[in-house]
Amino acid sequence: MNLPVIPPIDLNQTAGLRTLVDGKAKPLGALGRIETLAIQLGLIAGHAAPKADRALLLVFAGDHGLTQAGVSSYPAAVTQAMVATFLAGKASANAFAQVAGAALRVVDAGVDGDLPSHPNLVAAKVRRGTRNAAEEAALTLAELETAIEAGARIAGEAVDEGYDTLLLGEMGIGNTASASLIMHRLAPAPLEECLGVGAGHDAEGLARKRAVLERAAGRSDATAPLDVLREFGGLEIAMMVGAVLGSAARRRPVLIDGFIGSAAALAAIRIVPAARDYCVFTHCSAEHGHRRMLAALDAEPLLSLDMRLGEGTGALLALPLVRAAARLLTDVASLEDVLAGRL
Amino acid sequence: MNLPVIPPIDLNQTAGLRTLVDGKAKPLGALGRIETLAIQLGLIAGHAAPKADRALLLVFAGDHGLTQAGVSSYPAAVTQAMVATFLAGKASANAFAQVAGAALRVVDAGVDGDLPSHPNLVAAKVRRGTRNAAEEAALTLAELETAIEAGARIAGEAVDEGYDTLLLGEMGIGNTASASLIMHRLAPAPLEECLGVGAGHDAEGLARKRAVLERAAGRSDATAPLDVLREFGGLEIAMMVGAVLGSAARRRPVLIDGFIGSAAALAAIRIVPAARDYCVFTHCSAEHGHRRMLAALDAEPLLSLDMRLGEGTGALLALPLVRAAARLLTDVASLEDVLAGRL
Repeated sequence: MNLPVIPPIDLNQTAGLRTLVDGKAKPLGALGRIETLAIQLGLIAGHAAPKADRALLLVFAGDHGLTQAGVSSYPAAVTQAMVATFLAGKASANAFAQVAGAALRVVDAGVDGDLPSHPNLVAAKVRRGTRNAAEEAALTLAELETAIEAGARIAGEAVDEGYDTLLLGEMGIGNTASASLIMHRLAPAPLEECLGVGAGHDAEGLARKRAVLERAAGRSDATAPLDVLREFGGLEIAMMVGAVLGSAARRRPVLIDGFIGSAAALAAIRIVPAARDYCVFTHCSAEHGHRRMLAALDAEPLLSLDMRLGEGTGALLALPLVRAAARLLTDVASLEDVLAGRL
Repeated sequence: MNLPVIPPIDLNQTAGLRTLVDGKAKPLGALGRIETLAIQLGLIAGHAAPKADRALLLVFAGDHGLTQAGVSSYPAAVTQAMVATFLAGKASANAFAQVAGAALRVVDAGVDGDLPSHPNLVAAKVRRGTRNAAEEAALTLAELETAIEAGARIAGEAVDEGYDTLLLGEMGIGNTASASLIMHRLAPAPLEECLGVGAGHDAEGLARKRAVLERAAGRSDATAPLDVLREFGGLEIAMMVGAVLGSAARRRPVLIDGFIGSAAALAAIRIVPAARDYCVFTHCSAEHGHRRMLAALDAEPLLSLDMRLGEGTGALLALPLVRAAARLLTDVASLEDVLAGRL
């Protein structure tokens, strides 16, 4: 597999960026997390004038064989129905993207059905859904590599088009189950701490999901990131792994959404650790396990709004914070200039 | 004094709004705080299609006689220098307003100096700074009433112009000192719990600030909100009190920024309790005391980013969340329509 080469950030630039931020017309440290974020954006860009003007949300969609084992409270057909909703502009992610001033595209990574072509749909289907990971490996190695390479390529093409900031979202009934298994092996953490209600489960549903995940986990002792992704899927997660790597390779910040997006980022970082510095972890999901996964990533999310929708909605709400951080570096006067009346 | 009449929100509409939100194409409750906010916006508007498209940040500026007693680590002249910076478009609030898509105006509530006229400057100076509250009442009753009425009028005029969402920010060297005294009497809370480093103090500066605030507090036992504002100021805070009331009177949401903005909201709510439901508390400041003040207001802020700048910067970062909440009600399809393919 051709993995993108990710340039490490140059930590020697940190002090210069900190001095620039400290010299702005505000009390020292008064913008808190926005200042830290500004420094991260400067390090990502490799200079003190990063931009976060043109943003694209890629919503990766895929189906999961695990749904056959009953891990979700929603029928698998909802994945396709939601893809149609994104393309019609009527999902939460569309509304939030409109507010944030971000473009939105759906990437068909592995939806179990034929999708009509649409200008905002990127056709990249690897197969119609994953295999049932409770019974067998979700993907072959070739399928996994195809998905990761496609994600990296799609991210790179977005940068070529002029997008300076990528947001990753997802839609896939059953994908919290895959994400839980990935977290279990790659955080790592006991399975019980990786398991949550997903889109919504009662106690019985959660018990069923737990049993299925235990069966899947018992089938393989994989701990290497590619093996984990191959065993547990899913295609949209694998393609997000590629998009994280592809975005980092192009020195663009990549905004990670919730539980599933973080599982993809976790896998990407376990594959290429240098990818970590390019990730902005946007929010802490209400999904049980997300806080621990973020801790495993040494990530302090920007927002905590009790959300657990996915679609990239959390990343979209954090996009203005990222833009504000970039503008702090480029658009705000220095205290010295303010006090000298040089405006 | 003519206080605006604030229509109480109609809590009978809550159930209908909740049903609308619950019927959207997403798992139940999956948008967390955004759902609660959407319902609040619906209640404020009195219907299920609230708008938060045209937003205006009003930055109220004023000087404080308390600075003569040494409550701030910055010289009072910084207030004027920052007003010039706002008008030149080069402060953090300008950069964040640009990102958020909000207009910005500075209101001269009581800057200690003559400000040149400017299209984005609202001239409403009541007097050149407050009196030194450590020695005497900061304002006369007439001055206080003039300030509150001006704030209400300015908010109302903004609504008349077509702004549907108001954000309140402030600039005034020394104003955390006034805000601490207001919180002390109106939260109420022990003075020590209301006191923080403001724009920045070392231990010695904080001890000096504490001594000055104790002297001011010892001078008057006022606990009625108008008396408290008269005793401790400041003019920009009093005018923000009026703006909260004026915005609520016109059934528009008003986004409250940090420690000082919350002190103004607290006073407004103690004067007219019905104003509470129109306030959106946008962020928890790093200023010591803010969390307790928010608790006294029964407010759970949207953001917590370790910020303590003021200027309305926190409100600006939360504006997209408010807009997303409004769009959830108006722009997102119902799950029923999605499953029936009606898009």
